[in-house]
Amino acid sequence: MQPYYGITIDKQDQEHLYIQVYKHLRTLIFNNSIKPHEKLPPIRKLSAILGVNNVTVVNAYKLLEEDALVYKKIGSGTYVAPVEDELENERDMEERHRIVPYDFSVSSPTADLFPVKDFKIVIDEVLERDKGYAFGYHESQGFFPFRQSLSAMFGGSKVALDPDQIQIISGAQQGIDLVAKSVLDYGDYVFVEAPTYTGALASFKLKGALIVEIPILEDGIDLEALSQQAKKLKPKLIYVMPNFQNPTGYCYSVEKKRGLIEIAKSCGAWILEDDYAADLNTGDALVSPLSAYDPYDRIIYVKSFSKVLMPGLRLGYMVVPEALQDEIALAKHATDISTSGLLQRAFDLYIRKGLWDRQIVLMKRIYDKRHAVISRYLKSHEVPWVHYHLPQGGYNYWITMDAALNADELMWRLNKKGVAVLSGSTFYHLQLKSSSFRLSIAAIDEKEIEAGLGIIFNEIEAMYHEMSGSKPGLMKSQVL
Amino acid sequence: MQPYYGITIDKQDQEHLYIQVYKHLRTLIFNNSIKPHEKLPPIRKLSAILGVNNVTVVNAYKLLEEDALVYKKIGSGTYVAPVEDELENERDMEERHRIVPYDFSVSSPTADLFPVKDFKIVIDEVLERDKGYAFGYHESQGFFPFRQSLSAMFGGSKVALDPDQIQIISGAQQGIDLVAKSVLDYGDYVFVEAPTYTGALASFKLKGALIVEIPILEDGIDLEALSQQAKKLKPKLIYVMPNFQNPTGYCYSVEKKRGLIEIAKSCGAWILEDDYAADLNTGDALVSPLSAYDPYDRIIYVKSFSKVLMPGLRLGYMVVPEALQDEIALAKHATDISTSGLLQRAFDLYIRKGLWDRQIVLMKRIYDKRHAVISRYLKSHEVPWVHYHLPQGGYNYWITMDAALNADELMWRLNKKGVAVLSGSTFYHLQLKSSSFRLSIAAIDEKEIEAGLGIIFNEIEAMYHEMSGSKPGLMKSQVL
Repeated sequence: MQPYYGITIDKQDQEHLYIQVYKHLRTLIFNNSIKPHEKLPPIRKLSAILGVNNVTVVNAYKLLEEDALVYKKIGSGTYVAPVEDELENERDMEERHRIVPYDFSVSSPTADLFPVKDFKIVIDEVLERDKGYAFGYHESQGFFPFRQSLSAMFGGSKVALDPDQIQIISGAQQGIDLVAKSVLDYGDYVFVEAPTYTGALASFKLKGALIVEIPILEDGIDLEALSQQAKKLKPKLIYVMPNFQNPTGYCYSVEKKRGLIEIAKSCGAWILEDDYAADLNTGDALVSPLSAYDPYDRIIYVKSFSKVLMPGLRLGYMVVPEALQDEIALAKHATDISTSGLLQRAFDLYIRKGLWDRQIVLMKRIYDKRHAVISRYLKSHEVPWVHYHLPQGGYNYWITMDAALNADELMWRLNKKGVAVLSGSTFYHLQLKSSSFRLSIAAIDEKEIEAGLGIIFNEIEAMYHEMSGSKPGLMKSQVL
Repeated sequence: MQPYYGITIDKQDQEHLYIQVYKHLRTLIFNNSIKPHEKLPPIRKLSAILGVNNVTVVNAYKLLEEDALVYKKIGSGTYVAPVEDELENERDMEERHRIVPYDFSVSSPTADLFPVKDFKIVIDEVLERDKGYAFGYHESQGFFPFRQSLSAMFGGSKVALDPDQIQIISGAQQGIDLVAKSVLDYGDYVFVEAPTYTGALASFKLKGALIVEIPILEDGIDLEALSQQAKKLKPKLIYVMPNFQNPTGYCYSVEKKRGLIEIAKSCGAWILEDDYAADLNTGDALVSPLSAYDPYDRIIYVKSFSKVLMPGLRLGYMVVPEALQDEIALAKHATDISTSGLLQRAFDLYIRKGLWDRQIVLMKRIYDKRHAVISRYLKSHEVPWVHYHLPQGGYNYWITMDAALNADELMWRLNKKGVAVLSGSTFYHLQLKSSSFRLSIAAIDEKEIEAGLGIIFNEIEAMYHEMSGSKPGLMKSQVL
């Protein structure tokens, strides 16, 4: 009862007594004088100690409960809620791992790969160096030295990148949203690959745009379909992921890249290039961004760091055509003024110290091993009712089953066996059913990949068998 | 020349030679082997060292120049740019201070007041505790323990705030933008106070809304004008700052608060309450948020931390009516997925350690002193051609001159004398000319306030004299 005797109630105060009691208890909980799972005094006892009505304490406890700071056990009393419950839960990977030991659904790296120590060093160094200025107003376009180091480090094949072309964003999703805001009007057509990243669709739809899906093939978007529809509908924007497309993992050929640019030019569309994984090129071929082939300055390039580092960093950048720079900067200002100065400064230092380059090498090494396992497995388990394509990097595999099989059903059946995949139906605007699904190796290690694939392929075989009423091994054409 | 001998050029490499040279030089600059303002070798010399063509080095230097990593001095050569120039500049407050010694235009605290040490401690503690999870995916609505501590600490008069009602945002501007996104359609009417915060207008206009200005009086918005227009135009949204309004510093009376809520209810409008400064209440009267008087759950409350801490923190929260919670969370997801997890966790700890409360006390003490100086000055310099209103907190003063005087002209004249104020014309949607201006005491200390006010009042007197062709001292009515 000790901490409670320290509570002083002022009956002259204009503040209600129960609010005074509530605030005192809150402080005791926050400063750990009453510990998680510790029982609060019974109502009568506390009212006696404080010299207040029972009702006062009842109301104070109620407020604490509404704040989720305490919880009730029926017939037992009121206890302090463990405020760190959520922290513990999320760190409790073993729990998740116990339920889903084979998780091919997550498309970002696991927390253990994040370079925490490096980040601690750069953040400390920034706070030491810049003090309060790290939290001052920052240019909407982004902290200049950061744009400088980005232009130097991420030029790729378009080396001569000017810091003035760069717009800092709070992650790739914001980049897509800024484009929707500054380029699209209500009722405009936006062309997307099918399948595609549905987070982008959400931004386009919020702006009132009309979505048209163009199929993607193994060497890039279907240029014929694109060209036909473009003539007819005159899209304002074409949204693509030319390298390691999500969810398919496909890369555009150079011809397709050039073809896309010409079609966009001829119908007056902007191209929005979402580069979420080109850093993770583990193959031999060069993967250049579209802009390397663009003579017209019509490509808005959006770059995420989430796939090499962590999604919660909320930092990325875009390269903006000259004609759109003012509009994008204005839209950024109206959206959130600027991206966190601290994070921009920390990441700037992270690049300048060469730590980003080191992290890429580490991540590639890890993904390389995983790619080796999955491609070895796929090659040695060829069956006619499963089609796949080996990507040269990234971490997504697009697996297509016999057209009569439903990937939603597969997803739910696998779920019961501890395997998570994403059904193809997740990645379309209109299509409700798909015989394809996505495997991501971003958050699953080699041993689990091997075992998980075994379960997946057994399940597909079983589904195929049930569907055709025949023994596995028959050709697709014989069944349909 | 020493570092240059370490450069190795691979003539078999598929990468162009000049790009290889560029990348090597870039590394030397980044790792400080060549120092800021150090001269790069003459073209011929470096080509000789590396065994490459002159043109190769010329092109490499050109790329470095485009990255702003080097600069040229005509007739002298190429030098390494001081990458920290911007850092030094912005820290060089003396420079700004030399040009504008009396700055009443800035409306956020100066960097020296930011609790850097406290933030360093909480960030380090979070990284130590949560490791990579601090950068993992976070709920769009916000990190739960953070919402928990916010609901406990910021309840104000609406104490029983539920963490589920809270939406974390990357600053107040984002909150306004999310409301525009989820509530407004193209062509909807939005009512705003006149004058108002123009950053909000930008968000509404981007969404294609039509803005209608309703005058604000010393005790709050003009209810009669509001009610008339509301009946006619049926606004979707009414945007207000009921406490220490920006730019006027006016507070709504309780009657006006209730009246506004009833009008909104009757025309079916949502109210967007922007609370940027209620923490800085230095008067005796309580300033309750609108929601304290709202029986209809029609108020979206947006809260900024920028004015107590720093604008570059990019963190805030909103309290969302139940009917809008899903839409706002979806809009947040489409905008930037979530706010930085690291910042949410750090600020959560900052609150739980009681550091926020301490910072408020500190800031109030500082502002209190500044208020005392300015109100003493104003009271002892009463002239008939200047009207003002003393706010009970915040940091904005709205000064209105004789209607024949133009605040734009005053602003430019003061500018030449080292005084910065913001002309009233900045704060309107349509009105191009104003005889009012805003003084902000957020970033100017007592001594400067006193001296700056002297210059301002002298200038107004001079303008009045020129305009009326008479000696100061005449009544306004005699002039017009």
